[in-house]
Amino acid sequence: MRQLYHLLISPACRKVRLALAEKNIGFELVEERDWERRHEFLALNPAGEVPVLVEEDGSVISGGMPICEYLEETATEMPLIPGTAMDRAETRRLVDWFDRKFAAEVSDGLIFEKVTRRFLGASEGGGAPDMGVVRAALHNLRYHLDYISYLMEERRWLSGEEMTLADLTAAAHLSCLDYVGDVPWTQFPGAKDWYVRIKSRPAFRQILADHVPGMPPTKLYANLDF
Amino acid sequence: MRQLYHLLISPACRKVRLALAEKNIGFELVEERDWERRHEFLALNPAGEVPVLVEEDGSVISGGMPICEYLEETATEMPLIPGTAMDRAETRRLVDWFDRKFAAEVSDGLIFEKVTRRFLGASEGGGAPDMGVVRAALHNLRYHLDYISYLMEERRWLSGEEMTLADLTAAAHLSCLDYVGDVPWTQFPGAKDWYVRIKSRPAFRQILADHVPGMPPTKLYANLDF
Repeated sequence: MRQLYHLLISPACRKVRLALAEKNIGFELVEERDWERRHEFLALNPAGEVPVLVEEDGSVISGGMPICEYLEETATEMPLIPGTAMDRAETRRLVDWFDRKFAAEVSDGLIFEKVTRRFLGASEGGGAPDMGVVRAALHNLRYHLDYISYLMEERRWLSGEEMTLADLTAAAHLSCLDYVGDVPWTQFPGAKDWYVRIKSRPAFRQILADHVPGMPPTKLYANLDF
Repeated sequence: MRQLYHLLISPACRKVRLALAEKNIGFELVEERDWERRHEFLALNPAGEVPVLVEEDGSVISGGMPICEYLEETATEMPLIPGTAMDRAETRRLVDWFDRKFAAEVSDGLIFEKVTRRFLGASEGGGAPDMGVVRAALHNLRYHLDYISYLMEERRWLSGEEMTLADLTAAAHLSCLDYVGDVPWTQFPGAKDWYVRIKSRPAFRQILADHVPGMPPTKLYANLDF
């Protein structure tokens, strides 16, 4: 069976898992602590990062963006970048928004401080979270939740009337933050309504069952009525 | 005529300029100092970042990745992501390598310290470069030049036998560093041979004529025999 090398609290990996599930493609998860820089893993992806998808014939595709574009080209049943070239550009604009802007301003910092540091030795940057970084990320998060609420005033999904890779990307990032309890959903009802809808999809079930050893999710993480 | 809002020493903007030139698509450059957060520009791209492409009919496409994928879909004469789905995944893997990994480890830091800071006020982070950041970036740069040399042992271009968006992306980043004279080409002959070839293409001419006011390029920047 197709294998996905991944980490549980990784937006790029969650995006690929959601895309595979929406397209109804079977896969097996292989946990890869990429900071350990295992030789066999570096041979698969010289960048040394998850996600990496290994197809049944041994073909290897590395990286969240390349994997999702590959799936879109090879598994066409449930298009995740649908519509005209301009529609597709709007979906990719929002994918880019979350994978670069949201990552830089919010999720990279929060996930490193609150999750990754727990698994690193002291010499690798492990230890207690830097609360300055956490506070800045939580401050920035509000602007992004506001932007989602703003988009929801005129659209059914982030990039238009259909659910797309933009929604999966945003939900992949936000679900990581939701795991550690950092999203003030009740203050952003438009964003919350969108997240309720995406969280209720069958493709999300596997993500909601995630459990990092020694670090259980918050009570509302898997709750559809949060 | 189609307009590209851009900055001269920006890898994402240079990539789009190279892609447009390779596809022989006419365009007009509009300089946009995106850190000034002009209202009219934020209306075009709420992310407030260059590059932004405005088509003749007024359609707006924002971001290096979305613009290049859009051009690939709408201007098919000179394919920049050619081949099978696996070939395309390999091209996108390397695009991602330079736009995320190389950017984070080398070009974001170097360009901010050596170029952007000159244009910022003291309260916005302007001033002399932080030499610690510059040294770390130059150290990391060597690993990437080594990786290009390694790929060149078995391939004609970065992702295979054809020139692709991977080459344009890598060259966009490296040409920004070359402008300020930071690339030790002579120590990496494989990478240098590749850069000579891409620098000699007609599509590169406009980039080689770039001139940032008050900050002339190094002598070898526009030289094809460097």
